[in-house]
Formats: sequence, structure tokens, C-alpha cells
Amino acid sequence: MSVGSASTAMSKRAARGDAEGAPAAPKRSRDPERTQADLLAVATQEFARLGYFGARVDEIADKSATTKRMIYYYFRDKRGLYTAVLEQAYAGIRAAEQALHLADLPPSAAMALLIRHTFDYHAAHPELGRLVSAENALGAEALRSSTRRASVNLPIVGILDDILARGRASGEFQRRADALELHLFMSALALYPVTNVATIEATFGVDIGSAARREQSIETVTDMVLAWLRTPRSDRSTEPLVDPAQRPIEGERRS
Amino acid sequence: MSVGSASTAMSKRAARGDAEGAPAAPKRSRDPERTQADLLAVATQEFARLGYFGARVDEIADKSATTKRMIYYYFRDKRGLYTAVLEQAYAGIRAAEQALHLADLPPSAAMALLIRHTFDYHAAHPELGRLVSAENALGAEALRSSTRRASVNLPIVGILDDILARGRASGEFQRRADALELHLFMSALALYPVTNVATIEATFGVDIGSAARREQSIETVTDMVLAWLRTPRSDRSTEPLVDPAQRPIEGERRS
Repeated sequence: MSVGSASTAMSKRAARGDAEGAPAAPKRSRDPERTQADLLAVATQEFARLGYFGARVDEIADKSATTKRMIYYYFRDKRGLYTAVLEQAYAGIRAAEQALHLADLPPSAAMALLIRHTFDYHAAHPELGRLVSAENALGAEALRSSTRRASVNLPIVGILDDILARGRASGEFQRRADALELHLFMSALALYPVTNVATIEATFGVDIGSAARREQSIETVTDMVLAWLRTPRSDRSTEPLVDPAQRPIEGERRS
Repeated sequence: MSVGSASTAMSKRAARGDAEGAPAAPKRSRDPERTQADLLAVATQEFARLGYFGARVDEIADKSATTKRMIYYYFRDKRGLYTAVLEQAYAGIRAAEQALHLADLPPSAAMALLIRHTFDYHAAHPELGRLVSAENALGAEALRSSTRRASVNLPIVGILDDILARGRASGEFQRRADALELHLFMSALALYPVTNVATIEATFGVDIGSAARREQSIETVTDMVLAWLRTPRSDRSTEPLVDPAQRPIEGERRS
């Protein structure tokens, strides 16, 4: 994973560290921002690969251009480092979404590009999906204690809300869709090929992580979301769905 | 989790065990099928909760009506027990799908019921999603060595293929959809609220595991899939999607 720049929180910590008299200079670099970006990149890979309990601070220090002492200075403990890794991973996808400037595109094109980007981003950054899986296995304790969790993630709901509102205003979209729900659907569909590639290959003999399969999924999901947004809800009444109260019971089946 | 009956493979092992002279009788039961069903139920919970490495055979023996010696007799080793747990978990959802007799319902109603069932089943059996996550973290090694993996999972593709073919034959569905792709989409959407409930609550303050949210998701996904299946593909050309080669580049944006 390429880490272009350290997170804002990190830079603040670095600045504070310098001002208050930082401990011994990093091992192989005198540039604290670069050292920390390197440290976070290594820690990201280790936590994504081994989970929170499997990853070791000693190993992370060894593989990065810093020391265990520096890690504890900047992040207090393993949990602090892990939380910073998670924050940076979420911030990465949200920043990439902002960089698409979807507000400048017509609603359908913006929706299509966001779907494509969501699939491509998760495929290119499998560590994000793995970190999120690891964090869910821990009951999201670290994320709950993060002060940046909402500010990092809420922008995507705003971006989708804007696309949906513009689509309704122009008459192109006929549905009143829930932006958060749509975001979660896209995330679920884009994460699945990353997190479930092994079991799907083993059970169905198909590599859902391949570029060709991803391209097909992007097309299908885009078609599906746009067909849905463009179809008035009333269309549904032409063929009533099965009511939960009327589910077929053994011996009472429609034929 | 309720385990109604032991899997076929298990029953065979039990029968073989009896015929060849099984070891000491189970601790608290003289009914081998029931003992093994209980063992698998306990092992399922332990593997789902703690993952493959976290779960311990000693603990599983203690919590079930059997002994460590019996576990090794029937399943050879921890890996064998874990593989049987996985096979049974997959067989459970596939059997429940067969029991819906979707071939007896009109195509749209069958599709709607399958979507509802997929969400409800995963919500009621969170251990399945957790086992699958654990197995993916292991690279699906156990599943790859299972001789039942395909026979257990392929039927759902046949069920969906039948619904899609009947929908096209009646003219109700306009799309030539890929049954496996559609199955994977449903699985992804239904598993997400189970496996990612913690991080979504932490980041967005929403409980995606609630019955109300699930009901909303079922409605949206059903509307989406049916709107898509009923809309001819040519509709799409009314608003060309963004071509990957034409994605906006900084400074060259459409306004």
C-alpha cells in the first residue's frame, strides 16, 4: 500500500513531539512525517495480514524505519497504533471519493463512477477490507474510541445524498433512496470479492477477485442501481411481492 | 444454533464406528447421532466465536456430551472437526433454500422470497457468516480439502437459474442474468449486516443488524433486483455510463 502522507492527527502528534522535545531521532530518517508514514504503512500490512492479536509491535518496528520506543511515544500503545492505522485506512477511501468531484458530473454518471470507484478501490486496497474484518471480530472497540471515526466516514453519505437529490430534481431518478443504505450496499458488494475470494473459489471454482469478474460486477451493479432509481416505485404494484405473512407453508403452496 | 440432524457424512462415520466396534460409549448419551449433533453444535459455536486457532478441542469436548477421544475417533483431528462444521453450516442454508420449493412460485415471487430468505437466514444464523469469515482468513484450506464442498453449494445456482429461465420464458424478465453472480450479490448483501454490524455502528451510529433495518434492506434489494430484471438492457443507452477511459481528470472536468 502506498501511503502518500501521514494523517492530520499524526502530523499534529509529530509537531507536538518536536516542540516538546522528541525522544531519540528515528533510526534511518530525520524526517518525522516520512518516518511515521512508513511506520503506518508497515503497521497496516501487519494488522491486515495477522489481525490485531497476531501482529506484533516488535515486528512492526523491525520492518519499519523506526523503533519500538518511537511507536510508544507517538501512539502510546499497540492499540493506539492500530487505531491510527484504521483511521488512516478509512480516511484513504474517503479522500479518494472526494477526489472524484462527483458533484461536477450528471447524476447517473456520478452514480456509475462511484460504483466503479468503490469496486476498484477495494480491489486495489485489500488491506482495508481485511482491517475492517479484523476490527469487526474485535467488536469495533478501537473504532468506538476513535474521535475521528465520524468525521472520516460521514462525507460519503453527503456525496451520495447530493447525487440522489440532483437526480430527483432533474426527474432522472424516480426513487427516494436512502444514501446510507446505498453506500452500505456498494461497500458490501465491493468488499465481498476481497474478503470472500478464497471460499468462493473453493466452493464454486470461480475467481471473484479477477479483473474480468470485477468488470462484470461493476456493470451489473451499475445497471441494477440505475434501473431501480429510474423506475417509479408504483411499477412494483404490477406484480405484488410475497408478503411475509403469506409465505408458502408446506402443503399450502401455489402451483 | 439448533442442529436438527447430523450430516450424512457424520451418520456414515457413526454407522462405520458402530460396525467396527466404536470406542467407549459417549459420556452422557448412548445415542451416537444425537451425541454427534450436539458435538457439532458446540464446535460450530466455538469455531464461529474464536476462529480456527482460537477454538480448543478440550473446550469443545468439555462443553459437549462427548470426549476428546471420541472427537478424534470420528473426525481424526481438529481440522477434520472444523471441516465437518463448515460442511454442515453450508448444508444448512442450502437445505433451507431447497425447502422453499421456489420452483412452485411465479418467477418474481420466487425471487422475492429467495432474497427475503437469504437475509433472514443469515440474520438467524450469524455463526455461518462468522465461520465463512474465519475460513477465508485461512485461505479456505479446509473447504478446499472437503469432498462435499461443491455438492453442498451448487444447488442454489440451479434454483436461481430455474427462476431466471422461467421469468425470461414468461416475458416477465427482460435480462439475461448470471445466476451465480446474483447469488453472490444476495450473499454479500445479506452477510454484511452480520459481519460488519460493529464497525457500521461505530462509524455511522446505525444498527444494521436490527429487524427494522433488515426489513428495509429486503425491500430495497427486492425492488432493485426486480426493477433490473424487468427493464430491457437497451434502456441503459438513454444515458451512457461513464467509460473508464473517459473518467474525469483534474482540470478536464465536465461542469
